[in-house]
Amino acid sequence: MGRSVANPIEVGALAKALDAELLGDAGAVIRRVSSLDTAGEGDLSFFSDSKHRAAAVRAAGCVLLVRDADRDIVSGLRLIHPAPHLAFAQALELLFPAEKVIARVSPQASVDATAHVAGAQIDAFAFVGAHAKIGAGSRIHPHATIHCDAEMGNDCEVHSGAVIHPGVRLGDRCIVHSGAVIGADGFGFQPSKAGWRKVLQVGGVLIGNDVDVGANSTIDCGAIDDTVIGNGVKIDNQVQIAHNCHIGDHTAIAGCVGIAGSARIGKRCMLGGAVMVVGHLTICDDVVVSGGSLVASSIDTPGQYTGIFPITTHREWLHIAARLRRSGK
Amino acid sequence: MGRSVANPIEVGALAKALDAELLGDAGAVIRRVSSLDTAGEGDLSFFSDSKHRAAAVRAAGCVLLVRDADRDIVSGLRLIHPAPHLAFAQALELLFPAEKVIARVSPQASVDATAHVAGAQIDAFAFVGAHAKIGAGSRIHPHATIHCDAEMGNDCEVHSGAVIHPGVRLGDRCIVHSGAVIGADGFGFQPSKAGWRKVLQVGGVLIGNDVDVGANSTIDCGAIDDTVIGNGVKIDNQVQIAHNCHIGDHTAIAGCVGIAGSARIGKRCMLGGAVMVVGHLTICDDVVVSGGSLVASSIDTPGQYTGIFPITTHREWLHIAARLRRSGK
Amino acid sequence: MGRSVANPIEVGALAKALDAELLGDAGAVIRRVSSLDTAGEGDLSFFSDSKHRAAAVRAAGCVLLVRDADRDIVSGLRLIHPAPHLAFAQALELLFPAEKVIARVSPQASVDATAHVAGAQIDAFAFVGAHAKIGAGSRIHPHATIHCDAEMGNDCEVHSGAVIHPGVRLGDRCIVHSGAVIGADGFGFQPSKAGWRKVLQVGGVLIGNDVDVGANSTIDCGAIDDTVIGNGVKIDNQVQIAHNCHIGDHTAIAGCVGIAGSARIGKRCMLGGAVMVVGHLTICDDVVVSGGSLVASSIDTPGQYTGIFPITTHREWLHIAARLRRSGK
Repeated sequence: MGRSVANPIEVGALAKALDAELLGDAGAVIRRVSSLDTAGEGDLSFFSDSKHRAAAVRAAGCVLLVRDADRDIVSGLRLIHPAPHLAFAQALELLFPAEKVIARVSPQASVDATAHVAGAQIDAFAFVGAHAKIGAGSRIHPHATIHCDAEMGNDCEVHSGAVIHPGVRLGDRCIVHSGAVIGADGFGFQPSKAGWRKVLQVGGVLIGNDVDVGANSTIDCGAIDDTVIGNGVKIDNQVQIAHNCHIGDHTAIAGCVGIAGSARIGKRCMLGGAVMVVGHLTICDDVVVSGGSLVASSIDTPGQYTGIFPITTHREWLHIAARLRRSGK
Repeated sequence: MGRSVANPIEVGALAKALDAELLGDAGAVIRRVSSLDTAGEGDLSFFSDSKHRAAAVRAAGCVLLVRDADRDIVSGLRLIHPAPHLAFAQALELLFPAEKVIARVSPQASVDATAHVAGAQIDAFAFVGAHAKIGAGSRIHPHATIHCDAEMGNDCEVHSGAVIHPGVRLGDRCIVHSGAVIGADGFGFQPSKAGWRKVLQVGGVLIGNDVDVGANSTIDCGAIDDTVIGNGVKIDNQVQIAHNCHIGDHTAIAGCVGIAGSARIGKRCMLGGAVMVVGHLTICDDVVVSGGSLVASSIDTPGQYTGIFPITTHREWLHIAARLRRSGK
Repeated sequence: MGRSVANPIEVGALAKALDAELLGDAGAVIRRVSSLDTAGEGDLSFFSDSKHRAAAVRAAGCVLLVRDADRDIVSGLRLIHPAPHLAFAQALELLFPAEKVIARVSPQASVDATAHVAGAQIDAFAFVGAHAKIGAGSRIHPHATIHCDAEMGNDCEVHSGAVIHPGVRLGDRCIVHSGAVIGADGFGFQPSKAGWRKVLQVGGVLIGNDVDVGANSTIDCGAIDDTVIGNGVKIDNQVQIAHNCHIGDHTAIAGCVGIAGSARIGKRCMLGGAVMVVGHLTICDDVVVSGGSLVASSIDTPGQYTGIFPITTHREWLHIAARLRRSGK
């Protein structure tokens, strides 16, 4: 399958840009990129994992980024590079240059007269409320909502259907993907005779630079103080971060993770998919939690942690579960 | 409670349409449908599961779809059919005929001049970008966003708040429910000294015919090649499908499921609610995974698989968990 | 950090409103609120949990709500109250008075001529369909969608990006947070030779008074009868409630919970984060389920229930999992 590039480049120029050694015709033009599995004649692809050796051999007609040690795996056009994976990612940036942000407000947008949007692109059906500030080079896509008093730095991107509530401040170069909601009320209630009574949530959300928030993820505003997301934090889709969490710099959070209120997660942590973190606990820096685990107490030693019921045939599971249940009596 | 029908039908005509035997007055008119639990006088209902025998007897005044073997369970109006459940579903289609799609673009929509929307209904506050293609008979509901270059076939429906990104292609008769996001960037980053560096996601999403995507579900675009969803795949709400997954034809995925990157799931599989599938693994055809299980390794034999910690009183759980923990020392 | 108040109040007036004893200068003005951890000079804060004693001492310059027994913990301005936590919540309502709803329809909204919106505020890019009814004092935020025939009572709030489908009825004082979808089709299909065949979902959603629905949560319409949410139910973010569930009054449901079809949950229950409830089962009143547990069978005795695999180092987990697997053979 692969994908046609937006900006075709001659192989010679690409080799130069990537600082790679070229074997073959410098005048050939890269018009498509593909994974090894689907690479056709002339497609740019890369080989860096010996597991894919057979696929590399099958993809003989492609332009292959390879390590020096693998230079003879095919005989066609090759670019020799010590880190083919990284070089390929760099090539993508040349072959698919970012769309230029055009500083203009669509006549179909709704932008309050007191909002600051100079240098930003505001698309059709984007809403920007009173006193909101959007930095230069930022783009607000169709159907994104930036509520009053929300702020973001330069070169941010807020995708369609995303909602940024009042009291949210984003740094520079943040990407908020479609449908993400930042700054909705935290889940704060007090029991009373008449039932649950809502506690006003008056804190904000403070987000650093270079943060990505995935599609349909949610980050609640703080109850009193702010919810805080550090620099370089990467958040995948459908992640829920409750009020007053603190997420340390450069932590990566995979899809479907839930983090309950006031949890503090360190720097450079990695939470696998669907990890759940109980509230009011602390995870230190450099912790890796395996996907599907529930973190119910604080972790103060870096390392990998896991807690997953092993999957098996339903018949065997019935045995295991029955035995476990007996051990609780 | 039940529901008033949009198109009242005489019982005689309904019996004919369903190829059912009628016991009772052919001129009675069906004005409401109900489950057995709430069926009132004259409501259409059905009885097919012996568990609900008492409810059927209580619902004596309704118009009951029943099997021949159960024909004497009530004495009122009955429609005898070998599969009452299926016949009831068929009756719903007659009693609640689909709203006709009206080929027109709302003056409150934003449709790019280069988009192809002939024969489609584009509602108020729908956005359709440059070169997007929407087949005849399709309906784009209020606040749906179809980005540039996205394509869909005929008779599709995209509900409010859903976002279809560039590079997404849907077949015919697909339904994308409210708030679903298709084609947002996959979660692709490379570690670097300055932190996580985004890897451009240039693949698309290729979706077959007759696919349903549930409310607030997300399907990411591929990193290089496409994410692929087969024909007849049914996806419930709040499901996350990461970049480069392949989902085989007619697989059904229940709510809150997460599927990590590059997983390949076979045909006719059924994933129960909240199942999590780890990335880069393969599940063969005809696998059933019980709700709440985590699939951490490939499955190559059809059958049912389970891995869930059995729930118990908190007190017993403390015993079981302590014993389990000791077994790890 | 803390937060500047919208409506500064003199401490003397606040003491009176809260029925608290004042120690110190009645003329001081509250301009900010903070948690104890971040409270600066003059900020209103509260101390009610002995765990935070050290923080209270450090926050010596703030205006502190304390119990009589703790009155000497600091020497500055104090408000003595038997329940500092509750009094603080009450103070928030004075310091951050709710924005007044202004009965008007934005010229940038799309409101059908047959809709009833008298006394409601309909913001820019809000959509209100034919015959929809919105009670007085309600506010429909930018980019919210209220489909035809949907109804809500007085003093409701529907936030940006939320979608209310036809057949949904909300009571008074409900809050639907951003991106929530209420009334999308339930996941109902029948197997056929040609694959899954959609069963029309014709039920509605019946929601009581004082219900909160969190950001990006989803509540499906019933298959035939309604899905029912009782009075005072509080639902956090990213919760999925499938067709025909019944949720009893005053039950609280934390983030990322999934409840499968036709489950019946009692009154005053509390479901922790990421709890999953299998379909067609019953949970009685006053049940607490610990976060991360899967409820796979009915619960008929009030109390706390848990079923979570204990997290541990990955190395220990390997031992535990291997031992568990052997016990299934």
